[in-house]
Amino acid sequence: MSRIRNILFIMADQLRADHLGCYGHPYIRTPNIDALAARGVRFDRAFVNSGVCGPSRMSYYTGRYPSTHGATWNRVPLSIGEVTMGEYLREQGRRLVLAGKTHIMPDHAGLQRLAIDGGSELGRLLHSGGFEEIDRYDGHHEPGEESGYPAYLRRNGYVSDDPWTDFVISARDERGQAVSGWHMCNARYPALVDEPHSETAYMTDQALAFMRKKGDEPWVLHLSYVKPHWPYIVPAPYHNMYGMDQCLPVVRNEAERRDAHPVVAAYRQQEESQSFAMDECVRTVRPAYQGLITQLDDHLGRLFEYMEDAGLMRDTLIVLTADHGDFLGDHWLGEKELFYETIQRVPFILVDPSPEADATRGRAEARMVESVDVLPTFLDALDLPRASHRLEGHSLLPLLRGEPGGQSGGSSGGAQGRSAELPSGTSGGASASDPARELPRDAMGESLGESGAWRDCVFSELDYSYRLARLLMHKTPQTARAWSVRTERWRYVYWMGEPEQLYDLQADPDQFQDLGREATHAAVRAELRARLFDWFTRLKRRTTVTDAAIEKGTNAHKKAGVFFGQW
Amino acid sequence: MSRIRNILFIMADQLRADHLGCYGHPYIRTPNIDALAARGVRFDRAFVNSGVCGPSRMSYYTGRYPSTHGATWNRVPLSIGEVTMGEYLREQGRRLVLAGKTHIMPDHAGLQRLAIDGGSELGRLLHSGGFEEIDRYDGHHEPGEESGYPAYLRRNGYVSDDPWTDFVISARDERGQAVSGWHMCNARYPALVDEPHSETAYMTDQALAFMRKKGDEPWVLHLSYVKPHWPYIVPAPYHNMYGMDQCLPVVRNEAERRDAHPVVAAYRQQEESQSFAMDECVRTVRPAYQGLITQLDDHLGRLFEYMEDAGLMRDTLIVLTADHGDFLGDHWLGEKELFYETIQRVPFILVDPSPEADATRGRAEARMVESVDVLPTFLDALDLPRASHRLEGHSLLPLLRGEPGGQSGGSSGGAQGRSAELPSGTSGGASASDPARELPRDAMGESLGESGAWRDCVFSELDYSYRLARLLMHKTPQTARAWSVRTERWRYVYWMGEPEQLYDLQADPDQFQDLGREATHAAVRAELRARLFDWFTRLKRRTTVTDAAIEKGTNAHKKAGVFFGQW
Repeated sequence: MSRIRNILFIMADQLRADHLGCYGHPYIRTPNIDALAARGVRFDRAFVNSGVCGPSRMSYYTGRYPSTHGATWNRVPLSIGEVTMGEYLREQGRRLVLAGKTHIMPDHAGLQRLAIDGGSELGRLLHSGGFEEIDRYDGHHEPGEESGYPAYLRRNGYVSDDPWTDFVISARDERGQAVSGWHMCNARYPALVDEPHSETAYMTDQALAFMRKKGDEPWVLHLSYVKPHWPYIVPAPYHNMYGMDQCLPVVRNEAERRDAHPVVAAYRQQEESQSFAMDECVRTVRPAYQGLITQLDDHLGRLFEYMEDAGLMRDTLIVLTADHGDFLGDHWLGEKELFYETIQRVPFILVDPSPEADATRGRAEARMVESVDVLPTFLDALDLPRASHRLEGHSLLPLLRGEPGGQSGGSSGGAQGRSAELPSGTSGGASASDPARELPRDAMGESLGESGAWRDCVFSELDYSYRLARLLMHKTPQTARAWSVRTERWRYVYWMGEPEQLYDLQADPDQFQDLGREATHAAVRAELRARLFDWFTRLKRRTTVTDAAIEKGTNAHKKAGVFFGQW
Repeated sequence: MSRIRNILFIMADQLRADHLGCYGHPYIRTPNIDALAARGVRFDRAFVNSGVCGPSRMSYYTGRYPSTHGATWNRVPLSIGEVTMGEYLREQGRRLVLAGKTHIMPDHAGLQRLAIDGGSELGRLLHSGGFEEIDRYDGHHEPGEESGYPAYLRRNGYVSDDPWTDFVISARDERGQAVSGWHMCNARYPALVDEPHSETAYMTDQALAFMRKKGDEPWVLHLSYVKPHWPYIVPAPYHNMYGMDQCLPVVRNEAERRDAHPVVAAYRQQEESQSFAMDECVRTVRPAYQGLITQLDDHLGRLFEYMEDAGLMRDTLIVLTADHGDFLGDHWLGEKELFYETIQRVPFILVDPSPEADATRGRAEARMVESVDVLPTFLDALDLPRASHRLEGHSLLPLLRGEPGGQSGGSSGGAQGRSAELPSGTSGGASASDPARELPRDAMGESLGESGAWRDCVFSELDYSYRLARLLMHKTPQTARAWSVRTERWRYVYWMGEPEQLYDLQADPDQFQDLGREATHAAVRAELRARLFDWFTRLKRRTTVTDAAIEKGTNAHKKAGVFFGQW
């Protein structure tokens, strides 16, 4: 039996996996996150199901892939037909509390269609994606009434109609002129907001106040920081904590610009990529980005210290992860979305306080996990029913508790995830030898937990309908989509109406050479396409009946008074 | 401009395409349906999107494939998140009225989850799948209060608590003993109900009363007969109208039983197949089935005569189709579901009263249509907006009106659909010559209407989770699924975890030889799998934003005050 009472689900926004000490960054200081990893398991191959905030988060919150939950990009509302983490918890008498960002876009049309009053408790919960909001704060713009941050700033002396714009993301240049963090050239300056009043400090305070208030009452908290996401500007002393010589070298070469994949080439024409193509932009932004991360780590230190003192570390399951990475100029790109490890791979630390997990503490885990696994993990941790007809991920607890399929690979340290060896015998993938069985059978691991075999590939998607890249590609909103599968060795991408992409991560871990159009690799692409095909067939779109109800109703027509087929 | 005021959407349940005179049956008498075909266009290649009532009908009513609408079998409710025909019409001030069967299973859990009062107007509409019910009557069991049929029977002297069981599907054998139509051996006897009080007569009366009442007011009516679906029993004089020598020969041979596909073999173990494997069952049921069809035709004659006299034929668009066929012993099978032409191909007659369609009257049309095309056709006919972000089918009106892509093939008559030639140049399918473009691009015809190219394949699905066959196959409710693509030449089926099926419809129109495990046909299977893959990528799961909203929102972050990416 689990002794888990509380769950703390920490998300950082746009945090690259390789920008943490425990994931091998040679310079960045993240001692508190590193200590968290030492308490639990650090997953070296954790991947998001879409490389952009909205769809990635909706996969965390629903346990379903973007092609299933349907919120395929930032501006696409999550249908009120989708059941979220908060609703699963509430059904069982638990609550899901939010401090920070969710990127939930309310499904106004769905609420209106079903005449659901937005002011009712149900309406408010559907409006917020099932979160009960201590303080919802999505960043990137002046928050509304859902956040107390603007009022907090004003109370602390930041006199302005828009203190976020005027202080949090503003600075003064050498001449004392006010400059905006929206311009990346200003990332070098300290933000005008004092560090203790920064977004990261404020949201940590919210979490601490919540924990203090709850006392011995159990809770589930999503603490979701808007940083180190842009605007890239950080208060002193973090603004000049790192020099460019303490940043990772930018990963790009001239060859990859020649004959680039057409969609990648279109993304390189977008403003963020044009900016990051300049060395000066990379040199200016990366130190600030690292400063934002160390700042975050310091505040997590405050939080963990409180939790330790309050005894909460004994019975709180903790996940720390991110919704995607950040190119920061790698591959001549800015921002995110595309299918590079830089974006798709995220930090993922899981601390299970149960004694059953003691044997794996401090380990690095090489098996692959996806965002969709988080919700099943939480339900498992709290011994709550798991909706097997809806959830597309799998609980990670067996991987920590040495249950079947649960050996871990390697010990904690600075090793890059990709350098670890996968345990043998985990493949459930394609076998082309039997002509009657040309396709892989277990790519999504339906039998996970039964056979004990863990997945050997992960899936991700992109909808670029809203991006300039789509216009440059002359596509309709129905044809600007991509799906990707990543195995131990390969990263494959299927683009609607465009050439495929393929990277050999063993020979080319930096993804410089796209083999998607190489005749030599047609068979590899075909095998990976077959895995994607298998995945498509397993998406859980039959949501109105449980598997148990089907079992009960199978071959039951005579019980219902229907006697067809009798001679 | 269309002059269409009304829509009459006639469905027959379990009606094989080859069991109508105008589709080439050599003996059956269906003069009224044949006359309807002469008024409009008879589609020789019309296919359902699932070979079983519930999912097939939900594709008609939502314009979406089963993998999208999620109601994958008879007992799976259609999610209240799905928008139905009635709702599209109501949004535009029109109503959708029902007389007969829909197979809508209310999404009780969804209604409860969103606290929608079942007694409210919205609740009632969601409960009924968007239909306003004159008389809902799904057949197969004693109807409830939603149908007036039991009371009607009692008023007409059928004294019983359950007049349907005691009169409509009962008979007397030679010794005067009461026998049940549930036993197929009794199909030879006339039903105890008098023909004018039969289900088919009653529902026709409902439709006539509705049309009379509406007078000059426009309407949209779904007239949905429960026949010739089982129980196979028909009142005199139809019960002995046909002898076995006037039935089509049963299509089966010994070879197909040997080394059968495992799922087909499992279906053959189900009771209905065991029964129909007996010659006596085939000989007894087929004449009754044909009697039910001629009875239906006679009542449609009454209806069409009224419509002619009332002037309704001038401005009413009419569709007559079915939800799937019936094996009746073909291939050693009873019932439906599997991927044979017998089941998947249905009659489909479309009458467009507009002068623009005059040139195609009486023609047979060889281009392939699917159930999902019906809703877009209706919206097009009424000049109502089409929800391109949800609807997966295409309006058929251009095929009748000689608009781009609209030439028809052949003239009306007894020709089997499969014997007609497809016009050349309609292929938008796979081309393997360019290694960068290994997959077909237009299998689902996203560009239909723009390029003028019509689809060159159709798609269908099966969820056999609820069937005995699943238990015999030792599968879970998540792994008992199949998807199929049918091109001009091939019928291909992908089964989860089981061998594929493949039939060459040119060389083997009766589908005796399954090439799914033949090494010689691996390349054909790979090409057809690629078409299915392409189809999966085009399913419309992003339902909360319209394409127009995306166009408006593309690259619009600066308008929203978000200035990322600027140096």
